[in-house]
Amino acid sequence: MTDAEFDTWLRTESACVEQALHTWVPADAPARLGEAMRYGVLDGGKRVRPLLVLAAALAARPLDASAREAALRAASAVELIHAYSLVHDDMPCMDNDVLRRGKPTVHVQFGEAQAMLAGDAMQALAFEVLTPDGSSPRVVPGAQPMHPALQARLCSLLARSAGQAGMAGGQAIDLASVGHPLDEAALRDMHRRKTGALLKASVLMGAACGDISAPALDGLAAYGEAIGLAFQVIDDVLDVTQASDTLGKTAGKDVDHNKPTYVSVLGLDQAVRHARLLRDRAQDALAGTGLAHTERLRRLADRIVDRDS
Amino acid sequence: MTDAEFDTWLRTESACVEQALHTWVPADAPARLGEAMRYGVLDGGKRVRPLLVLAAALAARPLDASAREAALRAASAVELIHAYSLVHDDMPCMDNDVLRRGKPTVHVQFGEAQAMLAGDAMQALAFEVLTPDGSSPRVVPGAQPMHPALQARLCSLLARSAGQAGMAGGQAIDLASVGHPLDEAALRDMHRRKTGALLKASVLMGAACGDISAPALDGLAAYGEAIGLAFQVIDDVLDVTQASDTLGKTAGKDVDHNKPTYVSVLGLDQAVRHARLLRDRAQDALAGTGLAHTERLRRLADRIVDRDS
Repeated sequence: MTDAEFDTWLRTESACVEQALHTWVPADAPARLGEAMRYGVLDGGKRVRPLLVLAAALAARPLDASAREAALRAASAVELIHAYSLVHDDMPCMDNDVLRRGKPTVHVQFGEAQAMLAGDAMQALAFEVLTPDGSSPRVVPGAQPMHPALQARLCSLLARSAGQAGMAGGQAIDLASVGHPLDEAALRDMHRRKTGALLKASVLMGAACGDISAPALDGLAAYGEAIGLAFQVIDDVLDVTQASDTLGKTAGKDVDHNKPTYVSVLGLDQAVRHARLLRDRAQDALAGTGLAHTERLRRLADRIVDRDS
Repeated sequence: MTDAEFDTWLRTESACVEQALHTWVPADAPARLGEAMRYGVLDGGKRVRPLLVLAAALAARPLDASAREAALRAASAVELIHAYSLVHDDMPCMDNDVLRRGKPTVHVQFGEAQAMLAGDAMQALAFEVLTPDGSSPRVVPGAQPMHPALQARLCSLLARSAGQAGMAGGQAIDLASVGHPLDEAALRDMHRRKTGALLKASVLMGAACGDISAPALDGLAAYGEAIGLAFQVIDDVLDVTQASDTLGKTAGKDVDHNKPTYVSVLGLDQAVRHARLLRDRAQDALAGTGLAHTERLRRLADRIVDRDS
């Protein structure tokens, strides 16, 4: 796979995820709720988590129609969870941010109450997308109904990564850590939950859709864990090195909010080195899986560490 | 079943649900998050939804250990969704309420940010509880692992009742209706989503755990729909007839917030008559199912309409 082929894959798959989200996020929810949900999740973001889902699903073999439908559902569900967490995180009682993905945040656009409800409904929708019933439209022609065991497995992985042991727990530590110095171990624990858990779940949910079996799963889990942490280290780096218009969100806010970050704990150069080390660890774990088609995951790891927004 | 036997059943089962929630809602979530979650869901409320789950599960036949474990998981999951919705609903950007279940609301006790996160984590936890993995403790000795098809079915029912087509959608209508007169049809649509959807889902989730088959399900769905609406009509009545200390929450707030209610649309007497009519309709639907053990559901319908808090 050449650089150009990988770029084409990224573009094509991002467009498919966008179309799937357009299909599954309702336009007609009552009283502007659907509008707020669509505003919060469509047409924006790098779609890192959905791309991890799809790349992991493809790691063993090409997908048939049913597996591809399942993978697009898993990809949409993780993005819905990620997007809802941003909607809530931006609210005045949390980070009080007005800019996200280059647009006014949801509460600025729709009011706080609607933003909270939209986030709540997006979380529920993630689990609806993973448990399609007969009336749920398919995006892949010819796909068979999703196997209930796969539905249950995907719900289990997603719920555990989103909840108190994962993302929500990490945000609670984040909240409590403002103004308190954390050592590297505590910082790692916070980020492993806050960002890492959902990124790792993306890889494992993709693997479940691709029917990848147990021995390779450990390697994929190690890849997901390392890349999840690398992603956050680079986020911390970009927060101090990039301007708001490049990031599409407010830059410099970790320092402004007096939050501990990898940059504040390790320094800028050492943080960048640490992210590269984690990337190498992720790629080594991948190589150890023996799976035939890990090149997309390998390249995603490079992009996560080398990105500038 | 005598009144006394039914009372004993209510007391016993409420205690079992409480114990199950104690088991599954973590005490050790990071940075006071677990504490806020437990504060929001333990030791309070009438547990109407869990009792509907358990009564519906028992409508065909007694439960074996595995079905009872599943029913207690479903009962806990619906209560977690209900409790999270109260936590978010009480926040300043929504109803701005300070009293709930006779205690200060979660955001008063733990701060707004923690309350929002606790609600978010409670929603995720509901889906964790429905998809137990090997490390998840059981509350019923001898229960086998829950069948993946049952896990998927329960997640599907719960997600659809909690999301934009159900509870969250109803709350969005509620938000938009403040100060706007609604006719009875619009009011019914709002309440069917806001309160009715989760009550109906409770009945259907219980039926799924009790392995109740298709012909009886339609009758149970009709029961759930009618009783869901009756519950809300009575809520509207109690809001004007009872004092805050009886309700354990602020009374009179619908009028204060200028919200349309069944009392404001139908008048007090007519609203009470309407609730009784819905109760009769629910009980007729129940009788039509041909199920052998619907007496608990029948009595729950009476209690829902005759309650004073």
